[in-house]
Amino acid sequence: MQPSSPPNGSRAAWSDEQRLALELLRSGRRFLLAGHSRPDGDCLGSQVGLAAILRGLGKEVRILNPDGPEPEFDFLARSVPLEVYQGGALPEHDVAVLLDFCEPGRLGALEAPLMAAPSKKVVIDHHVFAGRSWWDAAVLDTGAAATGLLVHRIGRALGAVLEQVGALGLFTAIVTDTGWFRYPNTDAEALRTAAELVAVGVEPATVHRWIAQRRSRRSPALLGRLLTGVRYHADGKLAVVTIVYDQDAALTDGDDALDILRSVGTVEVVLLVRELSDGSCKFSVRSKTWFDVAEVAQAFGGGGHRRAAGGRVEGPLERATEQVVGEVLVRLGRDAPTQEVGR
Amino acid sequence: MQPSSPPNGSRAAWSDEQRLALELLRSGRRFLLAGHSRPDGDCLGSQVGLAAILRGLGKEVRILNPDGPEPEFDFLARSVPLEVYQGGALPEHDVAVLLDFCEPGRLGALEAPLMAAPSKKVVIDHHVFAGRSWWDAAVLDTGAAATGLLVHRIGRALGAVLEQVGALGLFTAIVTDTGWFRYPNTDAEALRTAAELVAVGVEPATVHRWIAQRRSRRSPALLGRLLTGVRYHADGKLAVVTIVYDQDAALTDGDDALDILRSVGTVEVVLLVRELSDGSCKFSVRSKTWFDVAEVAQAFGGGGHRRAAGGRVEGPLERATEQVVGEVLVRLGRDAPTQEVGR
Repeated sequence: MQPSSPPNGSRAAWSDEQRLALELLRSGRRFLLAGHSRPDGDCLGSQVGLAAILRGLGKEVRILNPDGPEPEFDFLARSVPLEVYQGGALPEHDVAVLLDFCEPGRLGALEAPLMAAPSKKVVIDHHVFAGRSWWDAAVLDTGAAATGLLVHRIGRALGAVLEQVGALGLFTAIVTDTGWFRYPNTDAEALRTAAELVAVGVEPATVHRWIAQRRSRRSPALLGRLLTGVRYHADGKLAVVTIVYDQDAALTDGDDALDILRSVGTVEVVLLVRELSDGSCKFSVRSKTWFDVAEVAQAFGGGGHRRAAGGRVEGPLERATEQVVGEVLVRLGRDAPTQEVGR
Repeated sequence: MQPSSPPNGSRAAWSDEQRLALELLRSGRRFLLAGHSRPDGDCLGSQVGLAAILRGLGKEVRILNPDGPEPEFDFLARSVPLEVYQGGALPEHDVAVLLDFCEPGRLGALEAPLMAAPSKKVVIDHHVFAGRSWWDAAVLDTGAAATGLLVHRIGRALGAVLEQVGALGLFTAIVTDTGWFRYPNTDAEALRTAAELVAVGVEPATVHRWIAQRRSRRSPALLGRLLTGVRYHADGKLAVVTIVYDQDAALTDGDDALDILRSVGTVEVVLLVRELSDGSCKFSVRSKTWFDVAEVAQAFGGGGHRRAAGGRVEGPLERATEQVVGEVLVRLGRDAPTQEVGR
């Protein structure tokens, strides 16, 4: 075992910029909480958590996103309206808070009206951001496992009382971004905060049922079809599956398949190539421990992180797959670390 | 959301019987930590955790089990020998501690020599036990999510310092018995304790890789083959898969398939029927929220819990499957609660 991650920021002192953000949250009266396009569980959960904190302090709060929640996160909308921007004037607000992203471009249709609004802009995020700061104040920490953890720290700093609606949001944020406590970013703060949220009344099994156990009846067989076609390369270091375009293709959950392929001991890289209706192809590539998949994605003009990336390639599917496989293979021999103990 | 589980025992006062157990752990010099046959992650992890605690207090400790660890838990043996009983005399010891079970019958070949030994017997367990107490002292709490949590409470009571080897054992115990924090028994104590263990140096992603990501290259395709054969009954409330006996059958991981089938929104009960080499059949049945699968297992002389049970049925496979499906169906209409919100 190596030493755990460095002491998390929950005990660290607040920086000047962060104190300014806290001050804006404390002094504002009407808040607009804005998320990124196709908001995920960390974005939506952080919004619900911050909305509960601010309402507890007597503020007016609206949550507004460029898109609605995916079906697996619809339960968050039961207690707090998750509004979708339909164009036109924004709700009146003193402070706009952007959660789980730093780039205004990710606001989609909300970008123009929000950037033009006279409100103060506060950013709360844990992503790496290479651009110049454009906000009035921010709570940024790339060491936080989830934006929801930053919201939890903020709630404590503001003296907010944790209640069930906000706790459900923050729990959702944490489990989404830590892969339910299995990803390398899972640290003591993530687990300790989750414990606090469960003590307030969040039921992990219920949240798991809402997020992960409401699939269609056809999904197991479609996943099965995908898995039976797995092919290995490079002594089993690379596992590849492909999805031919047909009426079922869109229903096939690629993330589940990629998780199962990563369960194979020899596997370091997993690749899914999916044919689209226009004959072009989309690929998702993930790695387990050391391989940098962002490099592979960049070779095709795509993007992502070291462990999860993707992009588009010209079809047909077979040729597209060969191309991406080739890019992985030329990199697989390079810098491979000593093999870990395995079966 | 309903209220969370009642305050866990970590803050509760120790009973007289528990105080006696602590006293035996404090005063003993030579310990034998015994597990049940086919020890799982909670049993082995609790042994490793308690061994580290007792060694830290200057005691001599041996871990002895009727069987060795399954391959997914072999990593626990890297720092602490997990000995397998080979017959003959037991190591000399003052105190024997049985972890994660109450019934001497589960000691397998260890039962006779251990029960005959003059040592004091301490039981640490979280399972329901209907029999009479036969031990000298015990720390029993059916409200604990894992036996590993009881060991953690004991370590604190003994003033032990948590270090990496013991922390890895206790973390393994907790994630094994809470389904990696997804089962209904996941409470604030489980998460809070896990946070402490991570702070000491346990890396969740590494433990996950050891436990769940060292499968054979053939496992995804075998799982795929199983899933493509899924059949539903009772408007999708029951999902059934079967495994015909062949050379691949033993390699197919049924638990993975059952987990995936439970991800379907309509599904309440999942059933796997597996043909054995002698033509007879074994079944595993699981439920999601309310259905009592133990009743189904009992109808065939099997056993288990409300949410996970199993047993044996006469072959051939098709007839065996029909029989168990029939038992589930007659019970599915009964007492079905109002449908939960779903897709």
